[in-house]
This record gives sequence, structure tokens and C-alpha cells, in this order.
Amino acid sequence: MSMNIEELGEFGLIERLKLIVTEKVTHNSQTTHDATLLLGIGDDAAVWSLGNEIELFTTDTMVENVHFSTENSTWQDIGWKALAVNISDIAAMGGVPKYAAITLGLPPSTQVESMIDLYKGIQECGLRYNTTIIGGDMVSSQTTFITIGLTGITSGPFLCRAAARTGDRIAVTGNLGSSSAGLRLINENLQLNLRDSKTLRQAHLRPQPRLQEGQTLLNLGVKTAMDVSDGLIADLAKLCLASAKCATVWSNALPIASEVWRTFPSESIDLALSGGEDYELLFTAPQEIIDKVIKQLSIKVSIIGEILEGIPGKVTVVDKDNNHMNLNSEGWDHFQLWKPNIL
Amino acid sequence: MSMNIEELGEFGLIERLKLIVTEKVTHNSQTTHDATLLLGIGDDAAVWSLGNEIELFTTDTMVENVHFSTENSTWQDIGWKALAVNISDIAAMGGVPKYAAITLGLPPSTQVESMIDLYKGIQECGLRYNTTIIGGDMVSSQTTFITIGLTGITSGPFLCRAAARTGDRIAVTGNLGSSSAGLRLINENLQLNLRDSKTLRQAHLRPQPRLQEGQTLLNLGVKTAMDVSDGLIADLAKLCLASAKCATVWSNALPIASEVWRTFPSESIDLALSGGEDYELLFTAPQEIIDKVIKQLSIKVSIIGEILEGIPGKVTVVDKDNNHMNLNSEGWDHFQLWKPNIL
Repeated sequence: MSMNIEELGEFGLIERLKLIVTEKVTHNSQTTHDATLLLGIGDDAAVWSLGNEIELFTTDTMVENVHFSTENSTWQDIGWKALAVNISDIAAMGGVPKYAAITLGLPPSTQVESMIDLYKGIQECGLRYNTTIIGGDMVSSQTTFITIGLTGITSGPFLCRAAARTGDRIAVTGNLGSSSAGLRLINENLQLNLRDSKTLRQAHLRPQPRLQEGQTLLNLGVKTAMDVSDGLIADLAKLCLASAKCATVWSNALPIASEVWRTFPSESIDLALSGGEDYELLFTAPQEIIDKVIKQLSIKVSIIGEILEGIPGKVTVVDKDNNHMNLNSEGWDHFQLWKPNIL
Repeated sequence: MSMNIEELGEFGLIERLKLIVTEKVTHNSQTTHDATLLLGIGDDAAVWSLGNEIELFTTDTMVENVHFSTENSTWQDIGWKALAVNISDIAAMGGVPKYAAITLGLPPSTQVESMIDLYKGIQECGLRYNTTIIGGDMVSSQTTFITIGLTGITSGPFLCRAAARTGDRIAVTGNLGSSSAGLRLINENLQLNLRDSKTLRQAHLRPQPRLQEGQTLLNLGVKTAMDVSDGLIADLAKLCLASAKCATVWSNALPIASEVWRTFPSESIDLALSGGEDYELLFTAPQEIIDKVIKQLSIKVSIIGEILEGIPGKVTVVDKDNNHMNLNSEGWDHFQLWKPNIL
């Protein structure tokens, strides 16, 4: 009878909880406000209209020794990343971030200097991406955690996961696998080429949300996007499931940094397919729109596959000879496992 | 040199962190959106204008074995309370709650049934107060915690802590001390009069945010309010500090439920002054406005003291003979201690 959430999996649990909260709420009829939910549970951010504006909201949490470790990150890096991953969600909707609320769960023995450094990192990221810290909450907790709630706005339309169409090309900004390669360098304390090592560590510790790029996608007519946080295959499967489509990814088209090839030559493809935390934008659109995107953006954009009719959520990877590749469990089963969003 | 947050205290830490994030952010000039922060860190909720609307945002966290224990609460009660305490913050601004995002930090061994019950409690509270659950985040954590971020709207003006004026009367809705009396009954497993016991436990486990009442206060011209979460004295001190005033509380005017008098006769005043988690509205206004409030509201409103010129944040309690009462440490020093928001 009884089952724990590890057995059921994150995805199964979310589905069950969703059923409970989708019971209709009749909003207070005594007010004349016009707030309407446009997109609820299941995308990078929730979306509602408020008066003439469209607002976005997302929240992400980092737990010590699950999502970060102070043994290999500075508190300033942790602060940057805690806000950056939320801004990435707003970027994936084509929005502009506005206000962030910070919740800290802290053991009483936490050093004051550590929290000042954490806030410096948060503020550094806020200044870089025009986001204002508006307050939050501070609670005592045996486990250290940082939760950020972030609002954003859009000029009207927004990117979502559920709009992919058959024949769309699948594209991605920047490179894949660099962050997880950086995490491996950090965890295994590998001594390698110094410049490569620094680049990969930075990719993991200081992700750069694709904020301008998300807005450009929206302006050029792209409708479908999400950010790559759990790994390309796992995230593309979610996008396909939301759109009721399947997808083929061409392994030889994957954008992989030369630093990754040099550092992990035999595992580069695996890192790009399953490595997570790249915070690049994964998007789909007809070829002619993607051509415009490639022309307009100053960063690299790679076409890596196509959207097809088929089993919803199914992602197939083929090599240059069109042979199916076997995916390791990090791909297909990823979001049926209860685990942190890191390798 | 090094200091931990227990030594510095929550209040000191917040002051230091505030300095870091108040550096000005120039909002993205490429967009035409007009979002302006009206009230940032330091009130029950942040407030901003978006287009023609005024929006509110608050966030509160409950940590297992700090803010709740599954030994004496059902998961459904925990869910109700997790949302109710956030709605109380919106009520304290005179607002209407809209959208809630739920973050769960959970050990993998968490039972699925427990989370379903938690969500049932959250949804029950959401339906009662017209609040829609829009999603959130789920992460692996050794310590169980529930963070809720909640938006709200107001018809334009809003209640805040910083508007108290010399000569204002201090008033409070409902009763004080019932929640902390309930917590003591639960923790000490006291066997008492069954009906009293049930009433007090419910006051602790199922707080009823004063949502309609907050809106009525605003409509009748009240400007200054907050909710009682940390205890009357501690919270009134915050209100006074924000308003740069001091206050006198008349102990014989404190509204205390007969169940509290019967159950803890010698400690009733202490519970009312320092108890916390009542989630009643504490507000100040000129006598004539409070008279209107008393006439309009169907629940009890008590005038319990007055706002005076003096040392900002100082709260004095006098008995019926106008003698100063000694406060225990739960009052004055409360928010200089690092501790959960419970007795």
C-alpha cells in the first residue's frame, strides 16, 4: 500500500499532486481586478495576465550537498547560480526578470561572512540581469537551502514547451556538456590543462542565462522553448511530451566545446546528451525562422534534430550514419528518478 | 573576527544583507514595461506597481521540527497552515491573494500519501481563500521544508508597518495567545477540558487569516497594520521601529479567550503578549477610524494601547494601575535571537 517518493519518482508525484490543486477556484467576485492564469504547473514559469500586462513567475531551490557544496564553490558563486538558474527560466519564456525574493534555510552556526558573500553573488547576478532583490524569509534549518522566487514580464506572447510542431527543427544556443564536464573536474579534482579547466569550472559555477537571446527568439517568431537544466535528452523529452510529439537528435550536430573534447574525449557525446545544468535555450521552429535566429544572434546556434509525429515524449538519438544510439539511463529515465538536477 | 548568525541575530543579519542588495538596478530600458517597486524588504509583503495594477508578494517557509512536527500535526494541517500564514501576510497589507507557488524539500523516503495529504491541506486553504496553486519546485533535501511564494493584488493603496502616528490607538482583531496555548497543550500532551483543548489546538494548527478584515481596514481608512506572527510585543516593536514611534500596551485590555484563562490562568497575559502565531491583525489608527472598524467588522476588535513619541521600537506594557510590567525575554529580545517563529 504505502510507497515512498523515490519509488514513485518525481514525475509521478507531480502528476498526482497536480490533480489535487487543479480544482477550480472562483476568484473573489467582490474585486474588479482582472488576473487570469494563462499557464500553470508544468512549464519553466507560470504565466498570468494582470490588467494589460503579462507576468511570469518561477521558483528554484538549491540545497547544500545536493545542488552545491561549499567544498568546491565559493558562497559568491553559489549566490550567483541561485539567482541565475531562476533568470534562465524567465529567459526560456522570452521574458524580462523583475523582482526576486530570497528564502534562506540556515543552521544557527552559519557564518555571517558566508551569508554576506552569498548575497554579494546574488546581487552581482541581479545587477548583471536587471533584477531587484525585494526581500524574503530567513528560517532555522539543519540543512542549508536557498530558494528564490522570481517574477518577470513579457511584451505579450511568451515561449512555452507545448507548441512544437511536426517538421520543426530543434536548435540550441551555445554548447552542451560544459557544465557537467566542469562538475566532474571539480568533484574528481582533476589536474588538467589550466585554461580548459577554468573554462569548464566556470561553466558549472557561473551559468550565464540566455536572457537577451530568449527575447530575440520570441521577437523572431519562435514559439517553443525551454532551458537545458536536467540534460538535453531529459529536457527535450519533457518538451516533446508537452507538445505530444517525438524527436530525433543528430549526435554529430551536438555543439560541444573544444575544452570538453580535449578533457573527456570518449565521454563528450554523453555529457552533451545527459549532462544538465547548461542553462542554454533549447527551442524548436520551422527552418526559415531558425535561419533568422542564427543570423540575428551573436552567439552560436546549432540545429541538432527535428520534431516528428510519434510516441509523445520519445527522443531518439542517431549517429552520422543514421544508426540509433543507445542512451544511458541518464537520458530516458532521468525524470522518473528521484534525484537532484545534477549529474 | 568570525561570527555566526546565532550571535549576530536574525535582525542584525537582515540589516547587513539589506545593505548589499539596495544598490540601484537600472531596469532594462529596451522594454516599455512600467514596473516600479513601491515597498521592498521589511514589511509583510513587497509591493510594486505593474501597469495600472498594484501587486503584492510574500514568502514563508515551514521547516520540519522547527515550525511543525508530524508527531502532533497531520500533513493536511501542515498544508493548510503553510498557505494560511502566507495569506495572512497578504491580509496584513489589505490585499487579495492570487497565485501560490509551492516548493517542497523532501527526503527520498517521504511517503507519497503524506504529500498527497499535504497538498489536500494546501488546496483546502486555497479554495477557502480564493488562491490558485500554480506550480513550484520539488527538491531532494535531508530536512523536510515547505516554502510558499504568494502573489496578491490591492485596489491601489495598501496597509504597511511604517505609517503609525503619535496618538494612534493600537487595536487587534480576535484573541491573542490561543495559538501558543494550543502549542503547549500539544507539546506537553496535557489532558484537559476536551472542548477547550480542541479550540486551542485548532487555533494553533488551523490559523484563519483575517483576509476580509484586512480589506475592510483599508477601505475604512486604516493605514498601519501587520499580522501577529512572532508575538504581540515583538511584532508591535517592529511596527513601532518602522514608524519611528514607541508604544504603550494596556495589559488589562488584551483580548484573551476564556479557554486560555481556564487552561493557563497564571500565564495567560504572557501568552497573549509573547505567544506568537495568532495571525490576527495588529493595526493602528485614530480613535474615530477604529470606532468605525469595530462597528463594521463582525469579529471582535480590541483597543489595547497607544502610539507615542519616544525611543523608536520601544514597547511598554502597563497594568490596570498604570504600573510598568516586566517583560520576559520573549518580548523585547525576541527578534534579536535566532529562533523559529514559535514559542
